[in-house]
Amino acid sequence: MAMRNGCEGCSDIIKCGSSKDVLAAKPAQNVITAYDRVQRRGMSACLFGSGGTCCRNCNMGPCQIIDGIEDMLGICGVSADTVAARNFARIVAAGSASHTDHAREMVKGFIETAKGHGPHQIKDVEKLKSLAAVFDVATEDREINEIALEVGEKALAEFGKQDDEPLSMTKRATAKRQALWKKLNIFPRGVDREVVEMMHRTHMGVDQDYENIMLQASRCALSDGWGSSMLSTELTDIMFGTPVPRRSIVDLGVLKPDQVNIAVHGHEPLLAESLCIAAQDPEMVELAKKQGAKGINLAGVCCTGNEILMRRGIPVAAGFVQQEIAIATGALEAMVVDVQCTMESLAQVANGFHTDIITTNYRAKMPGGVHIQFDEHEALNSAKQILTHAIKNFKKRGECFIPEEKKLDVVVGFSHETINYMLGGRFRASYRPLNDNIINGRIRGIGVMVGCDNFRLADDTHELIARHLIKNNVLVLATGCAATSLGRAGLVNPEAARFCGDSLAEICETVGMPPVLHMGSCVDNSRILVAATQIVKEGGLGEDITDLPAIGTAPLWMSEKAVAIGQYFVASGAQVVFQDLPVSGAKKFNKYLLEGLMGPLGAHWNVESDPQKLAELMVAKIDAKREALGINKKSERVLFDMAMRRDLTGGVPGAGCHGPA
Amino acid sequence: MAMRNGCEGCSDIIKCGSSKDVLAAKPAQNVITAYDRVQRRGMSACLFGSGGTCCRNCNMGPCQIIDGIEDMLGICGVSADTVAARNFARIVAAGSASHTDHAREMVKGFIETAKGHGPHQIKDVEKLKSLAAVFDVATEDREINEIALEVGEKALAEFGKQDDEPLSMTKRATAKRQALWKKLNIFPRGVDREVVEMMHRTHMGVDQDYENIMLQASRCALSDGWGSSMLSTELTDIMFGTPVPRRSIVDLGVLKPDQVNIAVHGHEPLLAESLCIAAQDPEMVELAKKQGAKGINLAGVCCTGNEILMRRGIPVAAGFVQQEIAIATGALEAMVVDVQCTMESLAQVANGFHTDIITTNYRAKMPGGVHIQFDEHEALNSAKQILTHAIKNFKKRGECFIPEEKKLDVVVGFSHETINYMLGGRFRASYRPLNDNIINGRIRGIGVMVGCDNFRLADDTHELIARHLIKNNVLVLATGCAATSLGRAGLVNPEAARFCGDSLAEICETVGMPPVLHMGSCVDNSRILVAATQIVKEGGLGEDITDLPAIGTAPLWMSEKAVAIGQYFVASGAQVVFQDLPVSGAKKFNKYLLEGLMGPLGAHWNVESDPQKLAELMVAKIDAKREALGINKKSERVLFDMAMRRDLTGGVPGAGCHGPA
Repeated sequence: MAMRNGCEGCSDIIKCGSSKDVLAAKPAQNVITAYDRVQRRGMSACLFGSGGTCCRNCNMGPCQIIDGIEDMLGICGVSADTVAARNFARIVAAGSASHTDHAREMVKGFIETAKGHGPHQIKDVEKLKSLAAVFDVATEDREINEIALEVGEKALAEFGKQDDEPLSMTKRATAKRQALWKKLNIFPRGVDREVVEMMHRTHMGVDQDYENIMLQASRCALSDGWGSSMLSTELTDIMFGTPVPRRSIVDLGVLKPDQVNIAVHGHEPLLAESLCIAAQDPEMVELAKKQGAKGINLAGVCCTGNEILMRRGIPVAAGFVQQEIAIATGALEAMVVDVQCTMESLAQVANGFHTDIITTNYRAKMPGGVHIQFDEHEALNSAKQILTHAIKNFKKRGECFIPEEKKLDVVVGFSHETINYMLGGRFRASYRPLNDNIINGRIRGIGVMVGCDNFRLADDTHELIARHLIKNNVLVLATGCAATSLGRAGLVNPEAARFCGDSLAEICETVGMPPVLHMGSCVDNSRILVAATQIVKEGGLGEDITDLPAIGTAPLWMSEKAVAIGQYFVASGAQVVFQDLPVSGAKKFNKYLLEGLMGPLGAHWNVESDPQKLAELMVAKIDAKREALGINKKSERVLFDMAMRRDLTGGVPGAGCHGPA
Repeated sequence: MAMRNGCEGCSDIIKCGSSKDVLAAKPAQNVITAYDRVQRRGMSACLFGSGGTCCRNCNMGPCQIIDGIEDMLGICGVSADTVAARNFARIVAAGSASHTDHAREMVKGFIETAKGHGPHQIKDVEKLKSLAAVFDVATEDREINEIALEVGEKALAEFGKQDDEPLSMTKRATAKRQALWKKLNIFPRGVDREVVEMMHRTHMGVDQDYENIMLQASRCALSDGWGSSMLSTELTDIMFGTPVPRRSIVDLGVLKPDQVNIAVHGHEPLLAESLCIAAQDPEMVELAKKQGAKGINLAGVCCTGNEILMRRGIPVAAGFVQQEIAIATGALEAMVVDVQCTMESLAQVANGFHTDIITTNYRAKMPGGVHIQFDEHEALNSAKQILTHAIKNFKKRGECFIPEEKKLDVVVGFSHETINYMLGGRFRASYRPLNDNIINGRIRGIGVMVGCDNFRLADDTHELIARHLIKNNVLVLATGCAATSLGRAGLVNPEAARFCGDSLAEICETVGMPPVLHMGSCVDNSRILVAATQIVKEGGLGEDITDLPAIGTAPLWMSEKAVAIGQYFVASGAQVVFQDLPVSGAKKFNKYLLEGLMGPLGAHWNVESDPQKLAELMVAKIDAKREALGINKKSERVLFDMAMRRDLTGGVPGAGCHGPA
């Protein structure tokens, strides 16, 4: 099938078969996507910006700093290192702020639910009680909703806390980590306050010591990871149910030619959960049938997709890089969005089709979008109003192309409770067997793959890395668009055991689990902090996260949230590797991130642009930790040669991705 | 006197005589200042950055957007308008965050004082009671400190508030303004939260509607102006005394050849007030004498300077652009800094002298600085420790040059209470006479001059504008480094009445006040909100700030705080004009700021790069408001011709600035 004119040069970057199919089909012939824009931009990305040494934090600039050249300091005398550190810290602040503002909405929704308002209920009572213990909320002889309300209110108070006491959930961390945070004075305090202090400290003429700036960047990130993100995950689980393993499907083939297709895109699951409930309402189904459709097909996009995939098994149509392409099928009646990662081009692409982009949150409007405010106090009515608008579009649908064969089976729903339970055996929830398997080497270590995908870089990067990891018996935990991408690659189901090294394959087959465990959306990376801490506390693998044979990566990071996540991982003692970071123009600061942070935090960032080398580095780092723990047995390193890499393209029979279309 | 080699090309920008003198003198021959860096940078400031269309908010970029060129959208499809709006909004967020974090420290210090800890006391009981009323704190039959403690705790709660109720102090605004904020849903809620929401909404793929982005930018800025900044000013006044008129001196000539000179630089007056108390301690004075000095001379720099100038009459040595030059005198034993606007080059300049840069706040460290943590719980001890370090440097002083004749008399201390009192007559505090004088045209209007100075632009800009305003009978209110600059120009004393138009001169002479009223530091712009509202409420000049014949400017803005201030002025209904704004690369958004905001807010931004035209625009805007109020009488416009402009340079007999050195 010939590529359409618009994207002739994009084939190096687009590897995903379903994306290629849609873009090559007739309905998409006039569509311009981000791939086209990347192609047209060429190599022009500004080196000062990419290197982190462009300073726009005051009006004496912009100052473009060249490290080591006296005349190229900032007007205020600022060095490349300070500028890069400030820019990096503001990325952390923006990422944390995004998680925090998302989490605040979830807590407010939870409080409404506890009050008995709206369509949701407290579903996971056990988890509620465990969180109640963290907040010193009494549970005995109390109504569930009464407990929930007090927990919700205490959770909300964590955002605005003005005293200098640590956030409540930091007490879950290992004793060693808590002692370290105390020593460094980076115990996170009020969640909102940490963002504000970070923004202040990066103002012109405040903090000009990059090590000191990184202390606050760590504290700010920790307030996200151990604060807002963790609260969001916990309360969402309590309200909508803690995920348990379930089967579903991913990729653009999940759209249905004879149904009303509604994509749900964004991040806050309050909207999506309400839409799920409303879509089952006979009134709505009836309306769809009246329009000539056989039913209503909700399909997820981006992290909203991961939320409803994990809890309801609703199929995921697309990750971040496929959002325009989902519209370009011509088969969407509406794309309903809330906040974060919804591209401004959506309305423009939708303009060529009958599709409406429905914005639902006062915080996020879009030129060309239709705004229907989602009111959490009237959640079901709002949801019906949105669905009604979408359903009525069905009759306007023109020519469409759904790559129907492109849908991959996935088994998802691996909350840390589930992992605990599965790997601990059916009758005893414990990380003991997991720890034992790590100690005995059958599981060599844990590779955490999180974050976005990115139009700038080849979209089979996640797959390439994950395949290397599982081949080398490294268990992969995945979240966010990385997890969706691995789903499209056929690695998020138990059958993928055959791509594993022998010992990991054996475990996957025995337990019946995939070698890539889907743990949720990007806000759910907090699950990994909890799991890692539990593994440490289970014993035998050191005293702190820093001792674990584990490493995280967000190779194709796009969102500022990914850097916030990376920084809370590092500040929690976990190694992290990205393909790039915007700090390379500042020698000392770059070195500090890549080595120096080891001193205060016991972990540091790593950068490796080549995906294969990045995967090898992950295994090597895991081996180094095994060595330090004294549990390393020499095991064969499986390195991919060219033939094996070529093999990847035809790897998974029936897989929608990576085969020439 | 010949300019030294290093700054030969700077004479276009440096107009200030004292700065020229110091840089030309022997001790400064090897000093490199920001003026040199501006000179060496030439014209290279990035157009994307200056135009506001460089997007670094995700890792698909940096994207340099060219408005109107399809191929130069961002990778996500983002337009120049959205990018410029996001960048502008993040400037507001960073500026607000800086004021907020400053204010939080002041509130915490106030609470300590209320508890009876530390060297400070509740000095302004009347103001305390007036603030108590705002917070519904009972005052009858209660101890002062008990009232203060409750007020302090309620004030602190404003930062972390998570409900959707307005900040308490917004109830001071006019009824019309409050109704407008309610209609637009921009009543500021918790102070910290507004910054976090702003950072979130400017994350990739959240808010992509510049009008909607500006609603939150307004709310965020209002949370600064009517929230944190106003709280800071109020509590600082209550604790350290509301400023009343007093005489002092400004400019580098305030340094003393035979005393220990300690510059106090930054923003949070807790440190400076404690240093003032400690410097009077006989133990400290004795120590200074032992080192061979005749005493201890504290001198202010930047906004800390304004704080202690206003309340204690401590001389101000330098504004923002003179901070390096103060060190280059060779006469400073130490420059003690806390937060904001302290240049990274300070340590480098100090390196050539015996001067130590003493950083005092854990939030702001500096390579090459000596860190002595100021502990608010041990305020006096900390202050003594800092002074001791500085005093011991005296013996190391080498050659120095103090431009001793360069010190200008100023009369400062115009809190809004003082203006109320002065212009209302000695026995009746009221804005009635001021209103009457505005209505009858003797005062044509009010020009508010705030903000920084900026090495990029000529440092007589403030003077040029202010002279035009007062010549045209416009009363000037000034804060921050703008006020210091006008002080150096000899306009902040009653004798400057002779530069005014006849009717303003008459009032200044009658009342004995300067035509430029110094209202404090940059956080004190909240005083202007209160004063403007009081003027409206006094009657005869419309129903809202937007009706007043008044306009604000921060012509030489440098700090992000200036944009936050500008935005809270605009969102409060006040016209604002700057010399530039980083939005010119985005046509629609630029137009929206410069015109469109009038629709929702009743005020908008203005940009005029030429100082003379800017001053004329201010008078024209004032006249337009007079016209709308029906109080305009044709009065002669005094436009400066070249001869008059030349005259400026020799204007003030004895003035240190602007004469050839």
